[in-house]
Amino acid sequence: MCSPSCRIKIINGNTCQPMTANINGSAQAVKFPHTQIVTVQPRTGPESIESFYDEFLAIPGILEQIILDTESNAFILACWGDPGLEAAREITPRPVIGIAEASLYMANMLAAKWSVVTTLHRVRDMVEKTVHRTGLTGRCASVRTTRLSVLDTERDRTATLDILTAASQLAIQEDGAEAICLGCAGMSGLEQQLEDRLGVPVIDAVAAAVKLAESV
Amino acid sequence: MCSPSCRIKIINGNTCQPMTANINGSAQAVKFPHTQIVTVQPRTGPESIESFYDEFLAIPGILEQIILDTESNAFILACWGDPGLEAAREITPRPVIGIAEASLYMANMLAAKWSVVTTLHRVRDMVEKTVHRTGLTGRCASVRTTRLSVLDTERDRTATLDILTAASQLAIQEDGAEAICLGCAGMSGLEQQLEDRLGVPVIDAVAAAVKLAESV
Amino acid sequence: MCSPSCRIKIINGNTCQPMTANINGSAQAVKFPHTQIVTVQPRTGPESIESFYDEFLAIPGILEQIILDTESNAFILACWGDPGLEAAREITPRPVIGIAEASLYMANMLAAKWSVVTTLHRVRDMVEKTVHRTGLTGRCASVRTTRLSVLDTERDRTATLDILTAASQLAIQEDGAEAICLGCAGMSGLEQQLEDRLGVPVIDAVAAAVKLAESV
Amino acid sequence: MCSPSCRIKIINGNTCQPMTANINGSAQAVKFPHTQIVTVQPRTGPESIESFYDEFLAIPGILEQIILDTESNAFILACWGDPGLEAAREITPRPVIGIAEASLYMANMLAAKWSVVTTLHRVRDMVEKTVHRTGLTGRCASVRTTRLSVLDTERDRTATLDILTAASQLAIQEDGAEAICLGCAGMSGLEQQLEDRLGVPVIDAVAAAVKLAESV
Amino acid sequence: MCSPSCRIKIINGNTCQPMTANINGSAQAVKFPHTQIVTVQPRTGPESIESFYDEFLAIPGILEQIILDTESNAFILACWGDPGLEAAREITPRPVIGIAEASLYMANMLAAKWSVVTTLHRVRDMVEKTVHRTGLTGRCASVRTTRLSVLDTERDRTATLDILTAASQLAIQEDGAEAICLGCAGMSGLEQQLEDRLGVPVIDAVAAAVKLAESV
Amino acid sequence: MCSPSCRIKIINGNTCQPMTANINGSAQAVKFPHTQIVTVQPRTGPESIESFYDEFLAIPGILEQIILDTESNAFILACWGDPGLEAAREITPRPVIGIAEASLYMANMLAAKWSVVTTLHRVRDMVEKTVHRTGLTGRCASVRTTRLSVLDTERDRTATLDILTAASQLAIQEDGAEAICLGCAGMSGLEQQLEDRLGVPVIDAVAAAVKLAESV
Repeated sequence: MCSPSCRIKIINGNTCQPMTANINGSAQAVKFPHTQIVTVQPRTGPESIESFYDEFLAIPGILEQIILDTESNAFILACWGDPGLEAAREITPRPVIGIAEASLYMANMLAAKWSVVTTLHRVRDMVEKTVHRTGLTGRCASVRTTRLSVLDTERDRTATLDILTAASQLAIQEDGAEAICLGCAGMSGLEQQLEDRLGVPVIDAVAAAVKLAESV
Repeated sequence: MCSPSCRIKIINGNTCQPMTANINGSAQAVKFPHTQIVTVQPRTGPESIESFYDEFLAIPGILEQIILDTESNAFILACWGDPGLEAAREITPRPVIGIAEASLYMANMLAAKWSVVTTLHRVRDMVEKTVHRTGLTGRCASVRTTRLSVLDTERDRTATLDILTAASQLAIQEDGAEAICLGCAGMSGLEQQLEDRLGVPVIDAVAAAVKLAESV
Repeated sequence: MCSPSCRIKIINGNTCQPMTANINGSAQAVKFPHTQIVTVQPRTGPESIESFYDEFLAIPGILEQIILDTESNAFILACWGDPGLEAAREITPRPVIGIAEASLYMANMLAAKWSVVTTLHRVRDMVEKTVHRTGLTGRCASVRTTRLSVLDTERDRTATLDILTAASQLAIQEDGAEAICLGCAGMSGLEQQLEDRLGVPVIDAVAAAVKLAESV
Repeated sequence: MCSPSCRIKIINGNTCQPMTANINGSAQAVKFPHTQIVTVQPRTGPESIESFYDEFLAIPGILEQIILDTESNAFILACWGDPGLEAAREITPRPVIGIAEASLYMANMLAAKWSVVTTLHRVRDMVEKTVHRTGLTGRCASVRTTRLSVLDTERDRTATLDILTAASQLAIQEDGAEAICLGCAGMSGLEQQLEDRLGVPVIDAVAAAVKLAESV
Repeated sequence: MCSPSCRIKIINGNTCQPMTANINGSAQAVKFPHTQIVTVQPRTGPESIESFYDEFLAIPGILEQIILDTESNAFILACWGDPGLEAAREITPRPVIGIAEASLYMANMLAAKWSVVTTLHRVRDMVEKTVHRTGLTGRCASVRTTRLSVLDTERDRTATLDILTAASQLAIQEDGAEAICLGCAGMSGLEQQLEDRLGVPVIDAVAAAVKLAESV
Repeated sequence: MCSPSCRIKIINGNTCQPMTANINGSAQAVKFPHTQIVTVQPRTGPESIESFYDEFLAIPGILEQIILDTESNAFILACWGDPGLEAAREITPRPVIGIAEASLYMANMLAAKWSVVTTLHRVRDMVEKTVHRTGLTGRCASVRTTRLSVLDTERDRTATLDILTAASQLAIQEDGAEAICLGCAGMSGLEQQLEDRLGVPVIDAVAAAVKLAESV
């Protein structure tokens, strides 16, 4: 587990700089005082991951951020599909935590059934595969997609909040979800406002991963 | 998540006092400095939980420890079957974490497949049901039982270590386990020695639950 | 199997006396002439089981009814969650049958897919776990909950019948159910009227369990 | 459920007359006094069902025994694969019970995990499909095949008993079975001797189906 | 794999002659030039397979077409339930391909999730069992039934096309299907028009099976 | 489906040139006369894929071979994990077939249960994930790993054959496999000798994919 001088490196899977800043802000807000958080993005790769193709192009740059790092005690992959997670664990003995799996474990501790609310309809298959890989498909009430791209979530926070609220309400009322997992790193920071509107726990994947990384 | 004055109550499901002390020792060893840990046992109930019957008799006393408590910020159910977990979550809005689920999430972050090594053969069905309830059956390489009762694990630590080593080696060699979950609170404290012998991660459920409780 | 002097003890999981009487009436109506039925309720415990907490508080009193009994040839747990079933089977070599599993086996012999129609929305998770424990999730078309509490089912039989009819029709039309399992012992006695309205088999769990207990 | 003048027709799926007589004997031994049992075999079809090909050739003759019957109150398909069960239920509103499903429900009421011990190795796939169709694969510890053909089980009862004992002991010791289902109608009558040797419940499928048919 | 003089026998499971002609037309249209296709129907059996009963009556006649054939290099079972497939493979070492499994493999290569659009509501269970037997239930978005009988699909092609379009659009919009499998041999020949209307791949099971039979 | 001038590009996932030549030889041997086969390897990437890390590094180079190609009618990913398959299908409307899924469909048409025999023990998790992604885990008897690296399979064909024979025999005798899938493109060409030794079908993944690519 993290010692007083613990350093955690968060790797945004996207090369979109404002998203890196947003992720860093969420992480700094929930970390223990003694934890040092450094948030980076790959040197090259797609601006945002909106498809399997984007994801596979991003992975070598993500893994490079681990290979070149000699200072951090743990790594967080900050893209909801946990891209390259198995490979990351092969190349370092230090803990590597995906934000998707972290948010699903947190949800599983809070609710019998939960839903993932995420970006464009075309990522449904990616999200379902991620839930499946983590092993928790049986506890997933639904995956609810929206008309938001990853970059949209950064651009208009008010519209994003409204769209997430509507999708989450459907998940709660029609699918039986008792908690909501935000299925994109770009949604980080909206969890409290969304929780106030919905009345059920809303899990920010970045915050969940920071807390688990401090625990491992 | 835990604030500086965070208080976590650990409830040993068994009324065996030495086991409560042992659990408390493991928890104190891994907690953050600012966390306050209080370890208790039910006022009445079976000395050790070795069957479904024992488990059901223990649950009302376990739940009473939550109902009567107005000071703690989070609760840990320290018996590997997570007895009464769903009910505990009904009666308090404060987080309640089972040591079984906590250890399985930790294992899932460390290994593609893991095994649970536990006590008597007759608890196999209980352990399999616990893994199933958590949703992670698909990642479980095997459940390996032994000739140790719960109370045996407290009595002779050297013999316990040898028996756990043998069972774990079978799990690694024959079942493909890449990590071992100790499937009984009474085994807490042996994880480091076992890890040294086996060369794969060994997860103590009590420690895993303390770290998760500090994170939630 | 039951001999001519066969005695079956039915244990209502709730301490609500009118429900015990109702269960007894249903059982007496379907038993073979030579079978002796005795219906009891725990000496202490919740009046009705409407949550996991209620269920766990009821189990010790249910198990006591088995331990103290030296005369009965078989036991029936008359609460749809089959509370304490595994423990009951540990403490006696005599057959113990849960009304939930009994009704699911009967349904499985009559229909490719069936639904469980039951009480309040908040028991959905309990009912799904019961179906899962029995092993028949793959044959379950749906679990349909209503706004009826367990005690409501005893109070206003006409309203109960109407509400069950509406929920069952949704299960048949939208979920593809070919038979309906009544998911609460308090609904016992309404099966014939409901079957007349719906045109598909309706299974009363108490009757199903009596017939299986006479068979084992 | 069966009235005092209840008549149950058992249809041996095989046209082997000694097996029909043996099945009839097992059924007569367990029926209630008032039940009338008639055991028949198809007019044409394979002498014994040892393959999928045999099974499909037998089904039209099995179904004919239902179509031509106007007197019976219930039917039992006495061949462990429950051949033609779905079709049988289409052509009559009277209850039709397969001996395989009947034995699995009985096993499920007696044991957390059970094994099916059956005939030649080449029927393993047939048996696994039957268990799967019933929905209970998750409760099946194993399918253990032997070097006995269906006709062998009728010819040498002592050798059959020895071979079943050996296979059952492996199921108990290596696969964790807590009860044994005899996976062939031809094994009917050996259950008591086998149970005495093994010390766990042994379920004769014909007897299980008779008791369920009397209950439905 | 097929040599230049390859001969494939297609066995229509139904004895409806116009359907045999239609199936033959679809097969001739997609075969390689050197492949010889012969399409037959059983000598006796139901005109169309609309139930499990029809299916079991058809199987002996289907299998006879294999037993009597000494010339063909491969067989195709042209009825969507793949009736008698396991038995067919027992009685000949030559490849036997079911049109249902062939269409599901093709769908699996084209789409993450696909739906089966088929005939009357009462065949839903048959279709789900077929998908399950092939092993691909997890990739099946839905089974959509219609008010078309098997014979209807031959009688009014325009109405059939409209009904299939409506059902397929629901599968795409509500169930997330990315491809459509036509779940009846009688629908063969409509795939191109349907694909033009829907904008997603539509798989004709007969064509899929011919291509796989040429490949094996 | 392939027209007379059909061109299929096979992309070896490894940059090991002798393996590309071997794959090409296997493909040329089974193709139809009119089919044109071109076998390439990525311009950059790992010499052989022996881990998740290797696989993720190889994918961008594999995808580049599709993006740059304007002549081929279909693509085959010739590395058993089907690396980048979902992304490949995003970037081209032309058919893309993975050799792993192709071999599993072929196995599923030939055997009720089959095993994958493959390279080093550490790729077991990769292979199991590939089988799972294809949806056919329920039909997989076992994954048998060996002490062969991917490059070993090219170096010493006699030793490779002996090691594959031993592993396959265990799969047949202990796991109930009725067919063997060779789980590495480097094993291509050994299938006939292995089939002669084993007496059950042995499926070469490259050949399976060529035949399916000609069919789609």
